[in-house]
Amino acid sequence: MPVPGGGQRGGSRRWPGVRAWLPVLRWLPRYSPAWLQLDAMAGLSVGLAAVPQALAYAEVAGLPPQYGLYSSFMGCFVYCFLGTAKDVTLGPTAIMSLLVSSYAFHEPAYAILLAFLSGCIQLAMGFLRLGFLLDFVSCPVIKGFTSAASVTISFNQIKNILGLQGIPRQFFLQVYEILRRIGETRAGDAVLGLACLAALAGLQVMKSHLPRVAHVEPLAARVSYLIVWTSTTGFANVLGSFVSAYPITGSFGRTAVNAQSGVCTPAGGLITGALVLLSLAYLTSLFYYIPKAALAAVIISAVVPMFDAGIFRTLWRVKRLDLVPLCVTFLLCFWEVQYGIVAGVLVSGVLLLYSIARPPVKVSKGDVLLVQPGSSLHFPAMECLRDAVCSHALAAASLPRSVILDCCHVSSIDYTVVVGLAELLQELRKHGLSLAFCSLQDPVLQVLLSADLEGFQHFLSREEAERCRGAEPGDGGAAPYTSTSESSLLPTGLIQ
Amino acid sequence: MPVPGGGQRGGSRRWPGVRAWLPVLRWLPRYSPAWLQLDAMAGLSVGLAAVPQALAYAEVAGLPPQYGLYSSFMGCFVYCFLGTAKDVTLGPTAIMSLLVSSYAFHEPAYAILLAFLSGCIQLAMGFLRLGFLLDFVSCPVIKGFTSAASVTISFNQIKNILGLQGIPRQFFLQVYEILRRIGETRAGDAVLGLACLAALAGLQVMKSHLPRVAHVEPLAARVSYLIVWTSTTGFANVLGSFVSAYPITGSFGRTAVNAQSGVCTPAGGLITGALVLLSLAYLTSLFYYIPKAALAAVIISAVVPMFDAGIFRTLWRVKRLDLVPLCVTFLLCFWEVQYGIVAGVLVSGVLLLYSIARPPVKVSKGDVLLVQPGSSLHFPAMECLRDAVCSHALAAASLPRSVILDCCHVSSIDYTVVVGLAELLQELRKHGLSLAFCSLQDPVLQVLLSADLEGFQHFLSREEAERCRGAEPGDGGAAPYTSTSESSLLPTGLIQ
Repeated sequence: MPVPGGGQRGGSRRWPGVRAWLPVLRWLPRYSPAWLQLDAMAGLSVGLAAVPQALAYAEVAGLPPQYGLYSSFMGCFVYCFLGTAKDVTLGPTAIMSLLVSSYAFHEPAYAILLAFLSGCIQLAMGFLRLGFLLDFVSCPVIKGFTSAASVTISFNQIKNILGLQGIPRQFFLQVYEILRRIGETRAGDAVLGLACLAALAGLQVMKSHLPRVAHVEPLAARVSYLIVWTSTTGFANVLGSFVSAYPITGSFGRTAVNAQSGVCTPAGGLITGALVLLSLAYLTSLFYYIPKAALAAVIISAVVPMFDAGIFRTLWRVKRLDLVPLCVTFLLCFWEVQYGIVAGVLVSGVLLLYSIARPPVKVSKGDVLLVQPGSSLHFPAMECLRDAVCSHALAAASLPRSVILDCCHVSSIDYTVVVGLAELLQELRKHGLSLAFCSLQDPVLQVLLSADLEGFQHFLSREEAERCRGAEPGDGGAAPYTSTSESSLLPTGLIQ
Repeated sequence: MPVPGGGQRGGSRRWPGVRAWLPVLRWLPRYSPAWLQLDAMAGLSVGLAAVPQALAYAEVAGLPPQYGLYSSFMGCFVYCFLGTAKDVTLGPTAIMSLLVSSYAFHEPAYAILLAFLSGCIQLAMGFLRLGFLLDFVSCPVIKGFTSAASVTISFNQIKNILGLQGIPRQFFLQVYEILRRIGETRAGDAVLGLACLAALAGLQVMKSHLPRVAHVEPLAARVSYLIVWTSTTGFANVLGSFVSAYPITGSFGRTAVNAQSGVCTPAGGLITGALVLLSLAYLTSLFYYIPKAALAAVIISAVVPMFDAGIFRTLWRVKRLDLVPLCVTFLLCFWEVQYGIVAGVLVSGVLLLYSIARPPVKVSKGDVLLVQPGSSLHFPAMECLRDAVCSHALAAASLPRSVILDCCHVSSIDYTVVVGLAELLQELRKHGLSLAFCSLQDPVLQVLLSADLEGFQHFLSREEAERCRGAEPGDGGAAPYTSTSESSLLPTGLIQ
């Protein structure tokens, strides 16, 4: 998580533990009037975006509009005290609202319970330091999920733009029903909706001509994803559930607005929160009159930029295998968003495990057979290495004199690999071949020495191994570092 | 799977496809009378071990004794035609019998159905080439499982040695009941059981003084485990279910007997199978009179050697982390063998994934910050690498001039890593630092070039990178291989 600005870094070094838990202490003692103006401006900008979005996202979640506002202000206040990145804003988002809609069944009580429970789970994960689990959600899965959510949420709003009622929630049924009943479109709704969409698109085009903070989104997106799991959002969700909020998370769009407005500290959130509270106090009676078509336009213009059509082309160019988790996630998300994410994580996990079980193994044949695993040897890779060695060493018409295993890329090995290497040594010896190791990294050498393998020989470099093993046939060669039971006999210089 | 003997290798090269599917064709055309004698001797030895073991294992599976023999002969015949390793024998084993007992409920019909279904699953896995899944069962899991099974099966037989009846199947209840009712021991059973145990132990000691094939078990054990999943055993199980067999697999003990008897081809299995059929034809009426205490002694002496007490000490010495899956498997197997195996595989999978998410990263600080990932960069590792670079590059009092990422151990990267590196480049540039790559392997370089990263620079070796980046501050240095959109501009010699 980036630390806010360079300015705060040299600050007072008292109570480092308290400051780690209550990050507001890092910047509040040094708060300057100059920052106040920028923070207020940014808070106001975010607030003006947050209020209509909150109303619109409540519609996505299938809840009355005021629940969007209930969900908006707690995140602003909590993040002001506990947040570390200055430009992140917490609140209801389109994707979280979509997920909530699957479980809330148009019943606010369920949504609030969901906020409380997900907050508890996030807090527990934060305390148990399980955030690393999020590393297993790969980029293609995130891209597939956000792109599919963008399509689903946009399409979900088409019925409001067209003024159709009683359309089912499931994507495919929705497409079918909307196409079937497109004749029932209400002209007033459609005109209002399309006009709003055009106006918002016009604003987007104007904004893109303004000077802006370059490429702030990718980083912000990543940060937002990570933040879901930190105890801050956890905490905000648990507190939020006491003020009738549904689950919230970091918002891409408003975080970008915040950064572009030049926010200095998380204090901007106070202004945003206050604006939301004011709307709740004075505007609630008007919510009934907000046309659904206008909210639909707000939602569509907010989620359409999340659809990344270029990702398919990029992955085709950069790494085709990653198209598999992308497509699986993207397609299954139309069925149910949760299933899409889970399936994507599983598919990318399987591809990861397969690549670990079948690492690249370079083999160069000659008088001496040189075998070099391209990466670390984890236990599932042992069979693959053994097959590579045996198929080249034993299947050839003319047996090589000896086999050298170049372990320069191997940074760690486990017991299964040690057993596999012991069996390999034995099998090659049965066929009159010797196996020597070279370029062993220190931890690997330690493990192999402690395992006390029968006939274990190693050399400092591949050249040395080739010189010694190439010159002398079979086991009788000059074996400078042959393992014995007394490992103390080994020259200490060997353990490089 | 090892090819039988060196002798058959130079044989006729006709019908390679047929020979791959029907391995009997590899050795039958070259069968010599000299082999016949050795094969017959080995087949006889295995048969003499197989008949009493089959009767005893039927008891472990909770089935009438003749079902052990039904299960024994089909494996012998099938393996003779389809087997590739000359010394493997298929048949009922102690562990498989233990697993069968959990599902058969003393009802042969269930056991036969189990054989058919597991055979179908194994055949399907063989055809779908899912054998690589077995690579994810690590050595500590196998050791923990066999050691626990050895204890469970032995203890299961204590009640028969003591002549106690009505003891429950579950391990802990069994221990409790046997201790509670030890006073009810029947003297006749106990004397017979202990005498048989002593006799078998005596034979074991005698055998260990005979010259034997050194260390044949580890390989055989591994082969046996692998063979469970090949279509051969699949096939034998499906066929076996038609002759009232329960599930079978490769047997460690009898495979060792076979190898020690000097078997030449899988034809030895014919003799073994015939011996089993003869016993079924002429000895079935006598089964009723076999004392359970004698069978218990056969079982205990067969499974006690499977308990490997030394593995705990070995793992403590060689790789302590592997004690975790070992202990989890070992302990949970006392609850239910299946749960133990599944938990062990999951635990070793989690440790594997954690080690991939947190690879070793070497960092050496100086004028130039040198960062070297110790192994390949898979997507879960990106956060860890980014943290390592940022914490060292940005948190220090004096910022280094530039950062060099030495990728010599990185054999492949995926899209998530590419995105992470792009963001890292951008973040470092925001702080006025440059990031250069060096020692890129060809596939990695191709991926990075195709991703067209902004500000991507790379050098052939670390020395070159240090020379160039150390001499020149910031971005203005001599950057020999700066990426441009036109990758054709790159010197071809660069792609090493």
